[in-house]
Amino acid sequence: MSIEALKREIALNYSTPAVVIDLDVVERNIARVQALCDAAGVGNRPHIKTHKSPVLAAMQRAAGASGITCQKLGEAEVMADGGQDDIFISYNLLGEEKIGRLGKLLQRITIRVAADNPVVVAGLPAAAEIAGRTLDVLVECDTGRKRSGVETVAEAVALAKDIASRPGLNFAGFMLYPPEDAMAETQAFLDQATAGVREAGLDVGIVSSGGTPNLINLGKIKGATEHRAGTCIFNDRMTMACGAATLEDCAVTVYATVVSRAGAERGILDSGSKTLTNDKGGLDGFGLILEHPKARIEKFAEEHGFLDLAGCNVRPGVGDVVRIVPNHVCVVSNMVDRFVTVRGDRLIGELPVAARGKLS
Amino acid sequence: MSIEALKREIALNYSTPAVVIDLDVVERNIARVQALCDAAGVGNRPHIKTHKSPVLAAMQRAAGASGITCQKLGEAEVMADGGQDDIFISYNLLGEEKIGRLGKLLQRITIRVAADNPVVVAGLPAAAEIAGRTLDVLVECDTGRKRSGVETVAEAVALAKDIASRPGLNFAGFMLYPPEDAMAETQAFLDQATAGVREAGLDVGIVSSGGTPNLINLGKIKGATEHRAGTCIFNDRMTMACGAATLEDCAVTVYATVVSRAGAERGILDSGSKTLTNDKGGLDGFGLILEHPKARIEKFAEEHGFLDLAGCNVRPGVGDVVRIVPNHVCVVSNMVDRFVTVRGDRLIGELPVAARGKLS
Repeated sequence: MSIEALKREIALNYSTPAVVIDLDVVERNIARVQALCDAAGVGNRPHIKTHKSPVLAAMQRAAGASGITCQKLGEAEVMADGGQDDIFISYNLLGEEKIGRLGKLLQRITIRVAADNPVVVAGLPAAAEIAGRTLDVLVECDTGRKRSGVETVAEAVALAKDIASRPGLNFAGFMLYPPEDAMAETQAFLDQATAGVREAGLDVGIVSSGGTPNLINLGKIKGATEHRAGTCIFNDRMTMACGAATLEDCAVTVYATVVSRAGAERGILDSGSKTLTNDKGGLDGFGLILEHPKARIEKFAEEHGFLDLAGCNVRPGVGDVVRIVPNHVCVVSNMVDRFVTVRGDRLIGELPVAARGKLS
Repeated sequence: MSIEALKREIALNYSTPAVVIDLDVVERNIARVQALCDAAGVGNRPHIKTHKSPVLAAMQRAAGASGITCQKLGEAEVMADGGQDDIFISYNLLGEEKIGRLGKLLQRITIRVAADNPVVVAGLPAAAEIAGRTLDVLVECDTGRKRSGVETVAEAVALAKDIASRPGLNFAGFMLYPPEDAMAETQAFLDQATAGVREAGLDVGIVSSGGTPNLINLGKIKGATEHRAGTCIFNDRMTMACGAATLEDCAVTVYATVVSRAGAERGILDSGSKTLTNDKGGLDGFGLILEHPKARIEKFAEEHGFLDLAGCNVRPGVGDVVRIVPNHVCVVSNMVDRFVTVRGDRLIGELPVAARGKLS
């Protein structure tokens, strides 16, 4: 089948906009990341926030991943229901409702969590008590990103001791999410924190680093035991821009229809911020149109994509279906209940985005 | 119940993030917009893209709305299933799949559509044929927004004639979505287009204008028969910024938990771009925190909201639940499968966002 025939078939069976994933590219991406982790001697614990699909998580495990990472408890619940048995929730969980759910999940499968402050740590023993088993807790360390994570070695050591002192909790190690250019600072932080907790008689079993852009840094942090990367299963304009992927590695395109050509140099797509989102990531425009790479997606309304066609010699007509590589694929997955799946120019079927919208 | 008790109850029963709507405010907003339309002598045809709930659409109808507006065919299908019987789809619909669905919908209920080009018009008779009844089509006119819509009076008249010449189609009038400061230009366009189609022996039954910011312009377009406004049922920072609402008119807040206070002047919310989206709308920051109006939401990661607390005297602690007025509420509704409903500080229950994710 040609790509034009595939576009017609998808428009006919699934309409547009459609979020389409190429399983051939997905499999290549999974294999490549696994090989990178294997070569660096670190475990691969892919972050499922990008795809939110237990089926794709199972493919990552089958390729060699030691477990998976989730950002939200609700994602972890869906993944456990889908057969995943070893999940790291890389997020501060707190509040009675979440602690209750965490306890129930810990009863069923292997769960680790992160924490960066004593309030969160103080809440976790209740989950262990509900589960009747020990909960592994990693101290989240901030080595420059200024997101979550303790900012100082002293805090990291103190929090590790706090965890170790609590009933039902085990201090399991450190979680990192370093800026790509902060390897030296991250190593220094990790070395000092490791020395600090060893002085207190604690072991550092796990050092978990992460990020698709940090795949180029695999092996550079001595002591790292695993890597959490999400976007690399699909890739997008942002991972291309940071050098972590090429266009051939982009597994997801949004199929959209040109619905208006009201001005000679303008066009309107049937896909706006409710499909592709307003995530810009410092890029020019809001997506790359494969058929018209010089067509600039200049802005979105909710259901309209505004095309500037001034730079195009061949301009799309009303009714044309085009394929768009999104700026940020992780938020696009989250907009739809299902992916349409293809292999090259062959339509395969669909795949539910089972953990979509699991915000809490 | 106090608001603090309400926050605890919502966190306990629904966790955070939660998208919470105050039905008292919703009812006031619905009544106010209906009164504005009544006073201006135009029909009220609320746009449901904001709330995506058949229950709220029914409340709008009960208050006097003559019908509803949808942007997407999938939204219209959900609304028809929920009992709505008079729907304007203000969007170019094309492609065999959508035309088939449109025909089936037209069999069941009163449907009108918009069109701004001959390719779309040429596809519509097939829907009328499937339905076995006439389809009303409005010509979408662009009077300055540069989105969809014909740009010239000549095109508007030609397209009206095209519609009238097609089997099964009825030229029903004009659709406008004017910039707020383009009333004179819009009036001139409408007058000339009306004269043009009358010369061709056609009637202009409907002149549909729209937009929450254009509620201040109600009555200014002579000949307008109805108004389509969406955001005004909920309101948000954008409608406050354009003067269409005050804080008391904002019906939706996102309940979020502070999960980290890693730096003295920083905080992290459990709500990021997958809840509140990166829609900025020209505003400062990504939302207004009612409890800490001087806390600036400076950016989002997918599941992290980054707080700059430098301007706050009283800073939130880890575990605090806060209420956030979003920048753009229409895209926030679209992230969740249900609203949590309250009246003042009393918890009511929940309401499905039934048309969420109906992208096509």
